Amino acid sequence: MNSTATRDQVLTDAEIAELAQQLRVDAVRASASAGSGHPTSSMSAADLMAVLLARHLRYDFNDPGHPGNDHLILSKGHASPLLYAAYKAAGAIDENELLTGYRKLGSRLEGHPTPRLPWVDVATGSLGQGLPIGVGVALAAQRLDHLPYRTWVLCGDSEMAEGSVWEAFEHAGMEGLDNLTTIVDVNRLGQRGPTRHGWDLDAYGRRIRAFGWHTVEIDGHDIAAIDEAMAAARDNRGAPTAIIARTRKGKGVVAVENLEGHHGKPVPDAESAISELGGVRDILVQVQGPPDADPPRLEGGADPHAALPSYDRGSDVATRTAFGEAITVLGTRRADVVVLDGEVGDSTKAGLFADEHPERYFECYIAEQEMVATGVGLGVRGRVPYASTFAAFLTRAHDFLRMAAISRSDLKVVGSHAGVSIGQDGPSQMALEDLAMMRAIHGSTVLYPCDANQTAQLTAALADVPGIGYLRTTRGETPVLYGAGEDFPVGGSKVLRSHPDDQVTLIGAGVTLHQALAAHDRLVADGIRARVIDLYSVKPVDTQTLREAAAATGRFVVAEDHHPEGGLADAVLESFGNGHPMPLLTRLAVHTMPGSATPDEQLHAAGIDADAIAAAARKLVAAR
Amino acid sequence: MNSTATRDQVLTDAEIAELAQQLRVDAVRASASAGSGHPTSSMSAADLMAVLLARHLRYDFNDPGHPGNDHLILSKGHASPLLYAAYKAAGAIDENELLTGYRKLGSRLEGHPTPRLPWVDVATGSLGQGLPIGVGVALAAQRLDHLPYRTWVLCGDSEMAEGSVWEAFEHAGMEGLDNLTTIVDVNRLGQRGPTRHGWDLDAYGRRIRAFGWHTVEIDGHDIAAIDEAMAAARDNRGAPTAIIARTRKGKGVVAVENLEGHHGKPVPDAESAISELGGVRDILVQVQGPPDADPPRLEGGADPHAALPSYDRGSDVATRTAFGEAITVLGTRRADVVVLDGEVGDSTKAGLFADEHPERYFECYIAEQEMVATGVGLGVRGRVPYASTFAAFLTRAHDFLRMAAISRSDLKVVGSHAGVSIGQDGPSQMALEDLAMMRAIHGSTVLYPCDANQTAQLTAALADVPGIGYLRTTRGETPVLYGAGEDFPVGGSKVLRSHPDDQVTLIGAGVTLHQALAAHDRLVADGIRARVIDLYSVKPVDTQTLREAAAATGRFVVAEDHHPEGGLADAVLESFGNGHPMPLLTRLAVHTMPGSATPDEQLHAAGIDADAIAAAARKLVAAR
Repeated sequence: MNSTATRDQVLTDAEIAELAQQLRVDAVRASASAGSGHPTSSMSAADLMAVLLARHLRYDFNDPGHPGNDHLILSKGHASPLLYAAYKAAGAIDENELLTGYRKLGSRLEGHPTPRLPWVDVATGSLGQGLPIGVGVALAAQRLDHLPYRTWVLCGDSEMAEGSVWEAFEHAGMEGLDNLTTIVDVNRLGQRGPTRHGWDLDAYGRRIRAFGWHTVEIDGHDIAAIDEAMAAARDNRGAPTAIIARTRKGKGVVAVENLEGHHGKPVPDAESAISELGGVRDILVQVQGPPDADPPRLEGGADPHAALPSYDRGSDVATRTAFGEAITVLGTRRADVVVLDGEVGDSTKAGLFADEHPERYFECYIAEQEMVATGVGLGVRGRVPYASTFAAFLTRAHDFLRMAAISRSDLKVVGSHAGVSIGQDGPSQMALEDLAMMRAIHGSTVLYPCDANQTAQLTAALADVPGIGYLRTTRGETPVLYGAGEDFPVGGSKVLRSHPDDQVTLIGAGVTLHQALAAHDRLVADGIRARVIDLYSVKPVDTQTLREAAAATGRFVVAEDHHPEGGLADAVLESFGNGHPMPLLTRLAVHTMPGSATPDEQLHAAGIDADAIAAAARKLVAAR
Repeated sequence: MNSTATRDQVLTDAEIAELAQQLRVDAVRASASAGSGHPTSSMSAADLMAVLLARHLRYDFNDPGHPGNDHLILSKGHASPLLYAAYKAAGAIDENELLTGYRKLGSRLEGHPTPRLPWVDVATGSLGQGLPIGVGVALAAQRLDHLPYRTWVLCGDSEMAEGSVWEAFEHAGMEGLDNLTTIVDVNRLGQRGPTRHGWDLDAYGRRIRAFGWHTVEIDGHDIAAIDEAMAAARDNRGAPTAIIARTRKGKGVVAVENLEGHHGKPVPDAESAISELGGVRDILVQVQGPPDADPPRLEGGADPHAALPSYDRGSDVATRTAFGEAITVLGTRRADVVVLDGEVGDSTKAGLFADEHPERYFECYIAEQEMVATGVGLGVRGRVPYASTFAAFLTRAHDFLRMAAISRSDLKVVGSHAGVSIGQDGPSQMALEDLAMMRAIHGSTVLYPCDANQTAQLTAALADVPGIGYLRTTRGETPVLYGAGEDFPVGGSKVLRSHPDDQVTLIGAGVTLHQALAAHDRLVADGIRARVIDLYSVKPVDTQTLREAAAATGRFVVAEDHHPEGGLADAVLESFGNGHPMPLLTRLAVHTMPGSATPDEQLHAAGIDADAIAAAARKLVAAR
């Protein structure tokens, strides 16, 4: 792996052209060894990558955590052979790993890049995500880190069709992120066939310029032109730069170059292709190191011991309000907490944070994909992001949340206005599928508090939970049940009513917990003893308490302000997998299509109020 | 409700200004009567609505199904008081309904419009959806109906931040939809505060023009200017038109006009506001009727009896291939079937439809929100849309799917490349949460076939299933198990192995069904009798067969190529709600974060292959 071509000096244009050929050859070899992959999508961008690596990127591959390192995001993640070939050229991985590991079981050289590689910030492969996340990384430099690192995002032309990309162009343009450069590899061919705009570089240029960016249109195989464009991008002030590069897919191999039908498969005859590309090379590039940079101060805060808000038992407080007040205190306690808003901070109460910590509040307007992506990008720079909007509108960012889990992001999302209990606004504003969505995210934590003190504690606890965390809040006021000092471990639950003669267990969370308590009182009046469990930790769920309740009562009534699928009841039943005997269970959930009505009318119409819970419990007990 | 102001002639500008004041007054009154709502967002657009209603809309409110009717989509759905006030002015609803029904239990005048009203095409209220759907409606006119109806979409300025809107601008611009007009109500104020661009009309204009639209910037309170712009939009050829109107939120009432803090709440003093607006009026507008128009022929097809593709038992065929071949035949059978692609039709095999029925194939490029929205829009015009992409990328359109259910759309979505079984491409391309997402959609149908003949039948069956239908297909080839003539009712299942001495039931669907069959054979070799159920209908699920299997065997092993939450096992347990005794159950699902590997390695690593199923069954039986 040691190469005679190691240089201390900058490569000449001709040498960079050779480096680009090496990247092509290595992409062809890696894909051939794997029997799959996207070499042609790699070959179009090889000159772009070669110039970036040899002349403009500043990165210490031995210290990927260096605070001054540039960030390179391969938004067109299917071109992973190109990225890995670049890592090999930089000396970060060796030839053996590239040729035996690519796309193989257990290898970190996955089909699309993930942070299993230390130099990869975020997983890509779902198109249209790299640039939105890159905006978050660049914003961190501009607003928080005050460091001179640059963010480079290599995009494909096909992904320009994704609306998320235009949310990112808008966000970066309006923030004047001159530390951000996106390179669009316009190779004209998508997966199925020609892209919408083919080689019409100005079609992209006009659109991107309209969003406040500087643009440069170049021949993406002209080393000098690429170099000049990247240098100009570094020097450009006040606006981000898009380098729009006309390229040829499969460049350098006649059998595939600029031809349809060669997306996502190895080059037909690898041997002859390698020969046509001038054979195997072993050029090692000395990538420029980052400038000296002090790591931003992320530990501690203005007042690490600031008290979380507390609420009087018996008072009525909306959990969304408690979230807003708690996250504001958390921002005082911890310098690493940042908040992102989808232009509803007055409703989610995230806006309270803005008043105290304006520099750490990111208004993303009504662009939920960009909001989540910006959060992921800020997380790359060590922040603990809380992104919040109406829970219903988090569905807009589902793909970004899914990918954030693959990125090993510790993003927190907060969704307000859960369920039919919002009342008059109607179904478009009601989150009735958010628990299903968030539970199914790999490694996620899902919390659904019922009172203000619980919300404050869980808001703070979420900051230290790894992976994607979700807090579900309620629009209307609910009674404060718990004392201010009470502890609510993630994975726990609270047994609020219990008696040795319990015949049935009532399980709720959020608004339905209060309905379960009311049902309990009615049942007691009927002579029926019922246990009541507050299942505030929906994932992980408190298996032990649920099993004890099943053993004691044998009957569960679960009530949830959510569609019947994927929510609380399904979470409860998880505790009885692997052959553990299950209780009899009645599910009360929103089976109907709601309209407008008051919150109480909605709970009643959906059959998830105290009446319905008590009736279900009576029936279940009678069926003994 | 009869008005002396009924006219046969066109209203003068001054009369239209009066009409606009009436719309404002009625928006104020409706919101006041409800105690909630968005009057200020209605008042900004009242002049725009008044001119449209009085001069440009062609619509028969007594015959909302008239094929020549224009389509009016209120993308800013929170301005429902304005829409309902317009319906009152058109004589479609009466004053009593407006003032007693708005936002009330059981009323069709919901907080945000839904098709419970016969004049509402689609539900709005999740911003950024009206224009994307309007593109589908306008495309139907251009490519299928060949009718002169126009599509008018009234948007807010805040929703211009949504990427989905730019997917729509791109799609409409490139298709040259000159029958589509969007009106952007630039009232400068979003929910939380000022929008990103305030009253910078040209900020919107530059961007929209860059996407190939004609734009007009006007004072949105100048009746003559509005009229001229709408007339120009109707006359403009070759490109859609955006009318960008500078307006004042809360226009006409000093207490709220152009002030922050008045979003989404009634005007403080309704009485004095009404007086300030000139009092209650009772103007009835005679909206122009539609031109004569023959309904497009949707019944039948080129060959209503064309045979679905059939496959030989024992051969290996990918279910995605069977889908592509079946949908192509369905297109020959039925004139109403249309297909939408997210630029992966070669992979999903939807592209086969394009070869036979190019006029009914809609290439939406990599813009899944626009793909689903276009499908919903084509559905408004009576088509049966099948939208397909990789199942993982359907998450991109989750909010559109959720809203499509509220729109009572009969959209079908097809997701390919389900689960870890795709192999080397890695987790970004694997759908592992799609079943959770699709099951939690209200009224949805979720089908997951395991072989080619089953896929062909289910593809055709889905066309007649109301609501959102989902078909999940597999990338790799699977053995054909069923005969070509076999019937697969929605809501059914197939018991593939059964014996009087069954001790355990193995349940799978798609790839895991084949693993369950292999596990069965191993168990038989060990002397363990196992029932095997093909649960191809995940929702609705075959409760009767599952209960019989529970009664007979008492033990279930469910294996699914999906995350543990919200998928097959949860669907199975639905059958045991309402107090029905549950079987012992072992869930085998994808708990790990996959990387790259071969399909077989992936199934093994995830613990959902025949080995894992057999081991789980042995353990469950031994635990008797």
